[in-house]
Amino acid sequence: MLQTGLMMNRPLLISAVIEHAAAQYRDVEVVSRETHGPLFRYTYADCAKGARKLANALAGLGLAPGDVVGSIAWNNHRHLEAYYGVSGSGMVIHTCNPRLHPQQLIYIINHAGQKAMLFDATFAPLIKGIAPHCPSVKHWICLSDAAHMPAIEGIDPLIGYDALTAPCSDDFTWPEFDENTAAALCYTSGTTGHPKGVLYSHRAIVLEAMAGCMPNVLAVSCRDTILPVVPMFHINAWCIPYGAPMSGAKLVLPGPRLDGESLYTLMEDEKVTISAGVPSIWQGLLAYVEQNQLRFSTMRRTGVGGSAMPQALIARFADEYQVEVRHGWGMTETTAVATMGTLTPRDLALPREQQHAIVARQGKSVFGVDIKVVDEAGATVPRDGSTQGELMVRGPWIVRDYFKGERSPLQGGWFPTGDIATIDAQGTMQIRDRTKDVIKSGGEWISSIDLESAAVAHPAVAMAAVIGVKHPKWDERPLMFIAPKPGQTVDKEELLAFLADRVAKWWLPDDVVFVDSLPVGGTGKVQKEELRKTHGGVFR
Amino acid sequence: MLQTGLMMNRPLLISAVIEHAAAQYRDVEVVSRETHGPLFRYTYADCAKGARKLANALAGLGLAPGDVVGSIAWNNHRHLEAYYGVSGSGMVIHTCNPRLHPQQLIYIINHAGQKAMLFDATFAPLIKGIAPHCPSVKHWICLSDAAHMPAIEGIDPLIGYDALTAPCSDDFTWPEFDENTAAALCYTSGTTGHPKGVLYSHRAIVLEAMAGCMPNVLAVSCRDTILPVVPMFHINAWCIPYGAPMSGAKLVLPGPRLDGESLYTLMEDEKVTISAGVPSIWQGLLAYVEQNQLRFSTMRRTGVGGSAMPQALIARFADEYQVEVRHGWGMTETTAVATMGTLTPRDLALPREQQHAIVARQGKSVFGVDIKVVDEAGATVPRDGSTQGELMVRGPWIVRDYFKGERSPLQGGWFPTGDIATIDAQGTMQIRDRTKDVIKSGGEWISSIDLESAAVAHPAVAMAAVIGVKHPKWDERPLMFIAPKPGQTVDKEELLAFLADRVAKWWLPDDVVFVDSLPVGGTGKVQKEELRKTHGGVFR
Repeated sequence: MLQTGLMMNRPLLISAVIEHAAAQYRDVEVVSRETHGPLFRYTYADCAKGARKLANALAGLGLAPGDVVGSIAWNNHRHLEAYYGVSGSGMVIHTCNPRLHPQQLIYIINHAGQKAMLFDATFAPLIKGIAPHCPSVKHWICLSDAAHMPAIEGIDPLIGYDALTAPCSDDFTWPEFDENTAAALCYTSGTTGHPKGVLYSHRAIVLEAMAGCMPNVLAVSCRDTILPVVPMFHINAWCIPYGAPMSGAKLVLPGPRLDGESLYTLMEDEKVTISAGVPSIWQGLLAYVEQNQLRFSTMRRTGVGGSAMPQALIARFADEYQVEVRHGWGMTETTAVATMGTLTPRDLALPREQQHAIVARQGKSVFGVDIKVVDEAGATVPRDGSTQGELMVRGPWIVRDYFKGERSPLQGGWFPTGDIATIDAQGTMQIRDRTKDVIKSGGEWISSIDLESAAVAHPAVAMAAVIGVKHPKWDERPLMFIAPKPGQTVDKEELLAFLADRVAKWWLPDDVVFVDSLPVGGTGKVQKEELRKTHGGVFR
Repeated sequence: MLQTGLMMNRPLLISAVIEHAAAQYRDVEVVSRETHGPLFRYTYADCAKGARKLANALAGLGLAPGDVVGSIAWNNHRHLEAYYGVSGSGMVIHTCNPRLHPQQLIYIINHAGQKAMLFDATFAPLIKGIAPHCPSVKHWICLSDAAHMPAIEGIDPLIGYDALTAPCSDDFTWPEFDENTAAALCYTSGTTGHPKGVLYSHRAIVLEAMAGCMPNVLAVSCRDTILPVVPMFHINAWCIPYGAPMSGAKLVLPGPRLDGESLYTLMEDEKVTISAGVPSIWQGLLAYVEQNQLRFSTMRRTGVGGSAMPQALIARFADEYQVEVRHGWGMTETTAVATMGTLTPRDLALPREQQHAIVARQGKSVFGVDIKVVDEAGATVPRDGSTQGELMVRGPWIVRDYFKGERSPLQGGWFPTGDIATIDAQGTMQIRDRTKDVIKSGGEWISSIDLESAAVAHPAVAMAAVIGVKHPKWDERPLMFIAPKPGQTVDKEELLAFLADRVAKWWLPDDVVFVDSLPVGGTGKVQKEELRKTHGGVFR
């Protein structure tokens, strides 16, 4: 019969993260871009005090453990305090994506039964529009000092964050509870049907934050300065707001300014060593750096995820700027990072071009997460790097049930991701497509992502998107959309010839549509649904 | 009311560690010194197969989940397989320190109710002596191939590890169970009274292994090669046998050869980047390197613990050999590492000498462990770097109860370590003494460790030990033992003058005893009990 270990029954709680930083790294800075422009800076000791003040303030408003407190906010220090003050109190922080359609926002706020909303002044017009439709929200709190409070017609009282918390004590004893207690809530973007809520536990977030700081993942130490560009409303900013204080790293929060110039200046001024965000952000940053012939003085490494990073961009970062790209994969349902790539000594012995090709994949499962790829019958396919199937994941920070969901999404204890992937013999996973985006042509699969990656390698192409269009003979055939770089043009025949060198002949798109820009959603991904609406007819 | 998160209920299990390595780092090498001399090398994929074969073999012997399987073994690949094969099966691996007195070994084996014993051929004479007194042990298994099996009179059958496992299948489905299930057992060295057993859970070991790989701790990545000199029978080798496969680092196991020349050659040949062990090992290594005017080509970092590393030694490693010392603290009751020091940017801006002084302390609590220092009334003392008191720890990998213990050692939920420590404003902890070693002189405390550190800074001193001796006026006064370096002599008056520049005048020892060597116990620490027996009378 199994014996039980005799270790302390201490829970993994989020409040311990900020108190760890306050006690071991009390003078380490948090630098935050205020929504109205200037930089604000204080320390982890101050941040912990702010979180405790907020906890007292929320209790003073009559909020109780289990209550849901929402946020619609940039990456800034007040939002950071809310991550700790809300979850640490046993409440649930519901990070809302401001780029959702207002109807979707109203839906998720009501679905969550939200009691309060924390928001940045930027979003005052949005709040004004949705507030009348969110009757459960009793407290509207603007993340602002007194001088920069907006007026929002119809909301009275409009509470100011600083005015609310300033009079509160910074003494607060964090409650201790089961580590499976809910800490945060995030809804999927819900391109089809209603958004679905993922209710993260303290255990999931703390374990993921530990995993994310590991040397094979983002490798965050007390010698680093980290700038998460990935929004705090997007998959918990990949848990960096937890991992940075856990590791004692200086944390730089960019607020609303995510353009290339602002990011570059902030990285240089604050001596940022690690960053993390989606590929489109890095495209903007690199364009600025190239146009102005700049260099990165301190940046060593950046985590990339959300969508596939083109190999050409990886190569430019690595070869021209000595910035290592760590390419990962995760989704709302996986708390944050599930896989990430770090070149091994075996990889580093290969020619640079082959190294970049490995980085262009989404890496190995981080310790704690299991991955497998299954065929349409549910059988695990070989780890040969070429057999495609649906990616399945499991682990202590993977969703089990959706919030108030009717039935568990799991299949045999695994979460089906909806992504088409391959895994190779070294455990390196590559996303080939979404199950809904893959183009099924004559019984074979064409990866829209591979086609797009091939197209953006063309020097005049800024963005590319491929959708499947119904075809009488082949079921589906690819249609490609191309947004050229500003001031450049691309010739269709030349582009097809360019692609023909890079993909199988039968993968070549049946047509190419040139556009000024592509519709991009709240998380920086091209909204293929929009393209399907306008162009998803039948070929010929 | 608190809400419960909706994440998967996946346990943290040790079997997942080796399977993670086998799937993501299958070709990464494990290099192991055979007990009979030559190096053996294979991969993590092979190691996982070996662990599964062992699991089948143990089941074949009739052993069942919950059974205790002991080991008396060096750091080698068969011992590594046992870490996984035994614990992964739901059994408990009881790592025995071969340097315990045979009577103590017999005591702990019987106390543990051990069913089988795995041992290296080195220890055949020891096994012969204890076997008749260990009736519960039904299976004696020598960690050897057929060619190097010893004959042990009275043990029949004597099972050979390779002969036992070779015919077994390498297919085994690791059972899934609660992460609080017992995985390993280790007894304290028990300088007074019987040794006490600490029963580690899967959760404790997996969490500690994650914590130990973090960039602020040992910083183990898939680009590293790690050589744990700290024995696998000593606090789980600081969980490196778990952390290395978790991180995909190449693992080098030195077997029985721990002398300076053997370690240096192994480090160079296998391109070791990280090591870990007690200070006396590093003293031996550095002596060899200095005598032969060698350099470390790949070593970048070493973890040190078990006893305090003298600042002079830290400085030599850092300044002359560019090897960073990470100084930590832990004990049998803390699974492995509880605190470890990594210089922060703030520290790195200081002069080198001051940096070394910071490294000479035992670092900050790793995330997951809380520390505090309390006075004799149990009140927490200020974190001022000077107020001493007993160090208390808590966390998910700290002991709650001793195995079959009559009452919990905890005080208000914290484990009292028996160490005297200070903590400074940056959270850096320094062990000043053991509660039983501190010298209470005229109501004030004199740190025996600080006195010893000051003495070993003298160029002719190899080792120093200080004990308290009863004194009619001052209660206790310090008596110092000095073992000079080979071929050197030290003058008492000159030594006292040397010390007078380094410690308070009232700390100076009342007398100095010169000896050829000091009695060292199984874990490399000076056995002060021995000194007290021979010299613990009354001064004057």
